[in-house]
This record gives sequence, C-alpha cells and structure tokens, in this order.
Amino acid sequence: MRMKCRVEYDGTKFAGYQIQPNGRTVQEELENALTKMHKGTTIKVTASGRTDAGVHAKGQIIHFDTFLELPEFNWKRALSTLLPADIQIAEVNEAEADFHARYDTSGKEYRYFIWNAVDPNLFRRNYTCHIRRKLDVAAMQQACSYIKGEHDFTSFCSTRTDIKGSKVRTITKAELIQDEEELCFVFEGTGFLYNMVRILVGTLIEIGMGERKPEVIPSMIEAENREAAGKTAPAQGLFLWKVHYA
Amino acid sequence: MRMKCRVEYDGTKFAGYQIQPNGRTVQEELENALTKMHKGTTIKVTASGRTDAGVHAKGQIIHFDTFLELPEFNWKRALSTLLPADIQIAEVNEAEADFHARYDTSGKEYRYFIWNAVDPNLFRRNYTCHIRRKLDVAAMQQACSYIKGEHDFTSFCSTRTDIKGSKVRTITKAELIQDEEELCFVFEGTGFLYNMVRILVGTLIEIGMGERKPEVIPSMIEAENREAAGKTAPAQGLFLWKVHYA
Repeated sequence: MRMKCRVEYDGTKFAGYQIQPNGRTVQEELENALTKMHKGTTIKVTASGRTDAGVHAKGQIIHFDTFLELPEFNWKRALSTLLPADIQIAEVNEAEADFHARYDTSGKEYRYFIWNAVDPNLFRRNYTCHIRRKLDVAAMQQACSYIKGEHDFTSFCSTRTDIKGSKVRTITKAELIQDEEELCFVFEGTGFLYNMVRILVGTLIEIGMGERKPEVIPSMIEAENREAAGKTAPAQGLFLWKVHYA
Repeated sequence: MRMKCRVEYDGTKFAGYQIQPNGRTVQEELENALTKMHKGTTIKVTASGRTDAGVHAKGQIIHFDTFLELPEFNWKRALSTLLPADIQIAEVNEAEADFHARYDTSGKEYRYFIWNAVDPNLFRRNYTCHIRRKLDVAAMQQACSYIKGEHDFTSFCSTRTDIKGSKVRTITKAELIQDEEELCFVFEGTGFLYNMVRILVGTLIEIGMGERKPEVIPSMIEAENREAAGKTAPAQGLFLWKVHYA
C-alpha cells in the first residue's frame, strides 16, 4: 500500500532534506522512524524534492510503501512518538499505487519571510531573514510583476545545479505581502531551479534597498547568466509551503 | 554610571534566569558578556526578578554599573556580538544612580500563549503550550474577571515559594485574547507570586476544558490553599512581557 504524507519540519538543525554521509537529515529521520514502525524492515521515502540546510517545510510531500494497515490517526500518533520534535507528520493518506511524490508534482509554492526592522526579532530568528534597512515594498512588488510568467530562469539558478536541460519555468504567482515589520514573498510555479527562490529574493532585497531598479528584472532574465542577478538570500527565511498535484 | 537595559531571551535552552551551579543561565551569559566588555572587571547584573527554566522574556529589565561611556547604539552592538543568539539587548539607557531593577518595580505584565488545535504548531512549539481539546474561550474569559482585583493568592502560589509575608497581590488586568488557533492570556499586576501565572493558566485551562466552572475561582481564592487550584501550566508558553516602574 502506498502512503502519501504531508511533512512539516523546522530546518534549523538539519543539514538539509536529503540523506548525506555527514550531518543530520530529514529523510534519514523519516526513514529511521518508519523502519522502526515496520519492526526493522527498511522503508525508503521519496519526497517531492529536496530542500537545503536551514530551509523549512510546511507542505513537503513524501510517499512510501507499507504492509501496515492503520487509520490515519494512528500513523500520525505512532510517527510523532518516533520522530524528533523538529519534524511532524501533518497528514497521512492512502495514495494510488502509482502515485509518485516527485514525478507527479504539477507545481510548488514557496514562501520567504523577512523581518524588516532595525532590531532583530529574537523569536523569529530561525524563520526570517533580518534586514535592518527599511525596504521599498512598492519597488519590490513592481519587480515581482516582471517575474511572473514563463521565462528562462538561468540567471536565477545556482551554477552548482545538475540540471542539463531547459531552465524555462512558469511562475504563476510572485507576490509580496506585508504584515507590519514582517514581509512575505509568495512564489508559485510549475517548477523551480536550484536556489531559484533564494536568488530571486536576494535580488528583490537589493531592489528594496534601492541598489537596483525594479525594471532591471527583464534584462536580468534575458542575460541568462547567474552573474546578472543578485545575491542568494539566506536559507532560514525559506519555506517549502505547498506541493501541488494535478 | 548605572545602566538600565531591556533584555529579550528565548528561554528554551536556559535553566532559568538566575545563576546556579549547574546549567546555562541568562544572568551568567549577561555577566560574562559585560565582564568581557569591561576587560575582565567583573560586572554583576540585577534583574527585575528571576524567570524559570523554559520561560521567555520580551521585557526583562536589568541594571548594572559601568565605568564605560558609550552611546546606546554601541552598547547594543558590542553586547550583541558577545551574547549568544538566544539573548538580545533591546534597549540600553543611562539610569539614575539609585535606580534598582528589582526594588523599584511598580508592576509587571506576563503573557501566556496557547496553541489550541488538534495538530501542534511546529514553528511555535517552544513558545506556546499545545492544547488539543477545543477550549471554551467565553468560560475562561468569565473566570479571568474573578482574578482581577486585590486578593490573597496563596492558592495560586507554589508551595516551594520562599515568601514568608503577605500573599496579597493586586491584579490590574486579566484578559484572554484569541487570534484564530492561538490564545493569549495577559496578566498585569503589582506583583506575582512564585509560579502564580502558570498556576492561574493551568486552572483556566481546566475551566476551558469544562472540568471546572468559571465560578469556582472566588472559592479557590478564599481557600488560601495550593491544592484548591489547578495544575501548573508548562513553562514554554510563558513570557515576562513588561516591567513597570513608577
């Protein structure tokens, strides 16, 4: 039986989602908990995609196969006792036998939170990027409008990517929501390149600081060159918010 | 010169405010940072009062004496490089030479946050108390109205207190604010006994769950007996929010 789960995690103390030789990962914690539940039978999980060290998730989706038959509530309870405090199974559902958490995604939503005030916010320090200088919200909103649509996002993709094919992606939503000192960028799209949201946000911050004009976005996109865009914003403000399946 | 500071801290990884032989404390971190700033001259700090392990502060007030003459901004910058990420100096001001952070307090405000939903909130886990069962907000608000005023709060004081004198205190504000799934109790008063807010909240939670009626509060107060009141709510929902000076 194939199970689909929505997983939340606080990325602060993880070396990222994907298992690696050194460092604590979300995938390893999930597989360890599931393997314990299955009395030692190794259970492998597949996620919609990886997230980097320090990046959080509200809506990461994983799937795995099981021979256990349990109601949703029991899955959640059993896993919550086996998982560490910084990972949580928010939803468990039986999926179609051929459901695939990565191949079946039709889109994703990321959110990026900025604490924009002179003094840092101690209680949001792991979940926001602190920018002391007052950002120009209107300029950043204007810049967002140029990001929306189908573009080749080579300029907004880390050169450490392993993607060989097309870097054309469709961004269906690029918005900035302000809630007093906290700013939230919302990006929704059919797909995202490596570090794409963090490079977009880093560039938008430079625009918000007045270091670049909002109108530079189209020419940055046209450049198809990572050096044309801004810096990569830090990981701790980024959340994988939702994964869409058609 | 006497300095007055407003200090914020995330109590999660502290064994409390006050220095103790075992465990990391806020006071020790503050004194270590100040002693470094004073090139090894020991600087002692005095706080408005102690907070327990796991309790947070937005508005803890401390004072200390210094021979350094620095503008406020430099104090904050120097201390922020010397202090760990979970303590922050929010304000620094020169005080009157006889200002005393503990003796001069005229009142305090505490806030207690509850996450009231079936699923826990991963990103608020260290700053809220999670209650799965839907709480009766109106009943808890009614109960709050009986807490306001001048009463002997012996029933709401831990038996581990070292107070020998009167346990009469005046509560000037006892309110419950609801923001969707997050509830916030606000208590303001001339003084608080040991564990008083946590025992009040523990009792209010029992009322919110329907285990006790709001009307029991007056008789609980009259009992002048810790056993008459409810359980002590966990530390992580509690914030020392403000300290008042006349």
